[in-house]
Amino acid sequence: MANAYFDHNSTTALKTDVLEAMLPFMASQHGNATSRHSFGRTARAAVEHAREQVANAVGAYANQIVFTASGTEANNFAVRGICSNLDKGQILTSAIEHPCVSRPALAIQSSSVQAKNIHVDSDCNINLAHLQKLLLTPTNLVSAMLVNNETGVIQDITKVAEMARERKAYVHTDAVQALGKIPVNFFALGVHAMTVSSHKIGGPLGAGALVLDKRIDIQPLLYGGGQERGLRSGTENVAAIVGFGVACDLATKNLSAFDVHTANLRDHLEIGLAKLNAVIFGYNGLRVANTSFFSFKYIEGETLVTALDKAGFAVASGSACSSDSTDPSHVLLAMGVPEDLARGAVRVSFGLSNTVQEVEHFLLALKQELTRLRNLTAVMA
Amino acid sequence: MANAYFDHNSTTALKTDVLEAMLPFMASQHGNATSRHSFGRTARAAVEHAREQVANAVGAYANQIVFTASGTEANNFAVRGICSNLDKGQILTSAIEHPCVSRPALAIQSSSVQAKNIHVDSDCNINLAHLQKLLLTPTNLVSAMLVNNETGVIQDITKVAEMARERKAYVHTDAVQALGKIPVNFFALGVHAMTVSSHKIGGPLGAGALVLDKRIDIQPLLYGGGQERGLRSGTENVAAIVGFGVACDLATKNLSAFDVHTANLRDHLEIGLAKLNAVIFGYNGLRVANTSFFSFKYIEGETLVTALDKAGFAVASGSACSSDSTDPSHVLLAMGVPEDLARGAVRVSFGLSNTVQEVEHFLLALKQELTRLRNLTAVMA
Repeated sequence: MANAYFDHNSTTALKTDVLEAMLPFMASQHGNATSRHSFGRTARAAVEHAREQVANAVGAYANQIVFTASGTEANNFAVRGICSNLDKGQILTSAIEHPCVSRPALAIQSSSVQAKNIHVDSDCNINLAHLQKLLLTPTNLVSAMLVNNETGVIQDITKVAEMARERKAYVHTDAVQALGKIPVNFFALGVHAMTVSSHKIGGPLGAGALVLDKRIDIQPLLYGGGQERGLRSGTENVAAIVGFGVACDLATKNLSAFDVHTANLRDHLEIGLAKLNAVIFGYNGLRVANTSFFSFKYIEGETLVTALDKAGFAVASGSACSSDSTDPSHVLLAMGVPEDLARGAVRVSFGLSNTVQEVEHFLLALKQELTRLRNLTAVMA
Repeated sequence: MANAYFDHNSTTALKTDVLEAMLPFMASQHGNATSRHSFGRTARAAVEHAREQVANAVGAYANQIVFTASGTEANNFAVRGICSNLDKGQILTSAIEHPCVSRPALAIQSSSVQAKNIHVDSDCNINLAHLQKLLLTPTNLVSAMLVNNETGVIQDITKVAEMARERKAYVHTDAVQALGKIPVNFFALGVHAMTVSSHKIGGPLGAGALVLDKRIDIQPLLYGGGQERGLRSGTENVAAIVGFGVACDLATKNLSAFDVHTANLRDHLEIGLAKLNAVIFGYNGLRVANTSFFSFKYIEGETLVTALDKAGFAVASGSACSSDSTDPSHVLLAMGVPEDLARGAVRVSFGLSNTVQEVEHFLLALKQELTRLRNLTAVMA
């Protein structure tokens, strides 16, 4: 059983203050936030307070926040909502997007609407020259993530948005992996839509949001009771939304502490990784502080993850958000990493709860496991 | 401030056992259920256990359960997933469906695909002769709810399914208001898809499910990481799913107690309502035990709900699931109730926590408020 958790880009523990804020909405009767009786009004007030908290954390106004049940839902909503009813044009998504951006784009492709990938370079940066070239064709939507979930590389979304706007295209950014790690400001980025998620920042599962430019023309993904100004129907998940709000406040408050603390752990880790001859992906890119994505030649990532788990360390192989596929990471392939090296990929993503001691123990365990696995391979060969 | 909660068809309090089962997944680090380390495997095991619990409660196999974040999402998924890519045909929804069934059907209408309403009679029963007539036109999907959320009237879905299947149409039923109130058996109903929701049965918000006939051809609504066998992407909301599972167990266990207890309260209430000359909607239909939907001539429902709230009773006006619209209930209009009487509609929906004493106090308060409001109207006239 692992006891050191190094997989914070996948999901995080609920912060104590978050759970405390949620419990009153779970431990006793609360109302449907649409109901007009006092139970409902209490729920409504809590949802609206959380909306302010989320808005504050992303530099937007409360009336720009549309609550969803997840980042995945917000991304599907953005792509399909902006591009539904298209009869021609194209949708551009970066080659390193999470599948909850790229797959909805593929799903709405037709004979006259094409979904195309924007290339990235070997450091995991979006190739702006390629974007420029693609934008010569009339484009409806450009979607590019602010921080890549696997490598942690930060993209120049301000520039992407500027280029897209020049060509009259809408711009969406998936900022799920950015919130809590770097400053996120909706207006400064210049996008029309932005996705954030609660459970990546110490909030609960069950809440996400799409932040919208009020002038955007977008269709709902979920139709029904008309909640969220008709843009997202479904009974508001009050406790989860309340938790998301508090988690946003904490993310802002802890932003520099998170950066300093996890950068220290990451640097410790990567000095050790270098001694073990790891290849670190996106090393030359501008990265968030908590993420390290690496590979060892001739060692399978899945095997290493399982071995490290037994040794007490929870890390991810490739993208932890995807299904049980054993395909190599599409992010690494887009960066031009050879397939066999990509299959070796292991991701460590730190949180405030991790310690230098854990990292040191991890490096010892990693060294042992590498030796053991290499010997095993040598014996079997 | 209301303290007697009579709005259980809108949302219910979390049961103590449900909250206790959820807390371990909230109070400490848990993994993403897709992750392969021990944190992830623990989460996965919990999700799969809950899947068995939900399946048991609805008479289906675990591999037929697709978890969603809500009943609204499951209904949108059913309608759009079954009907996407249609190039001709029709979608039939009963005139009393929740908007999260009827509105997605309207949203996918095109020049060659039509969404049509199946009429209901004055007792809130689906007009089977009208359905038969509509089915003469080639039909892709028939969606009809098992229990109406406003009147509590139970529909003959077995018959609806039989008629639809004869015409090679798929059948979906929204069973959100049925689960926990009457026995629900997927196979006995003969449908291809069925929606259930957690927060209507003492489970948390954030979990619902679409139960599927394995042979059905359905497209995802949410694309991404490929969770739920590729049918519904997004990180599993482990705590909510665990709570939903326990709530399903309890719903089955308490089914007859719920029926007996709430029927007694409802009968008490309706004897009193008759003395006050209320019109009770769906009174001659076969109803679930906990629901009473009624109106008083010349009294506005919203006004009465507000007055009763001040007197300490949380009840709903029209449909509590809809947005801030003040239109009269579409269910009552479909039943042929005159618009002014429909505007007076008030819904009481009981739960196991309610008592006869609360009902007696409610009847006293109601009588007082009716007198006060009538005097007020007389003075103003």
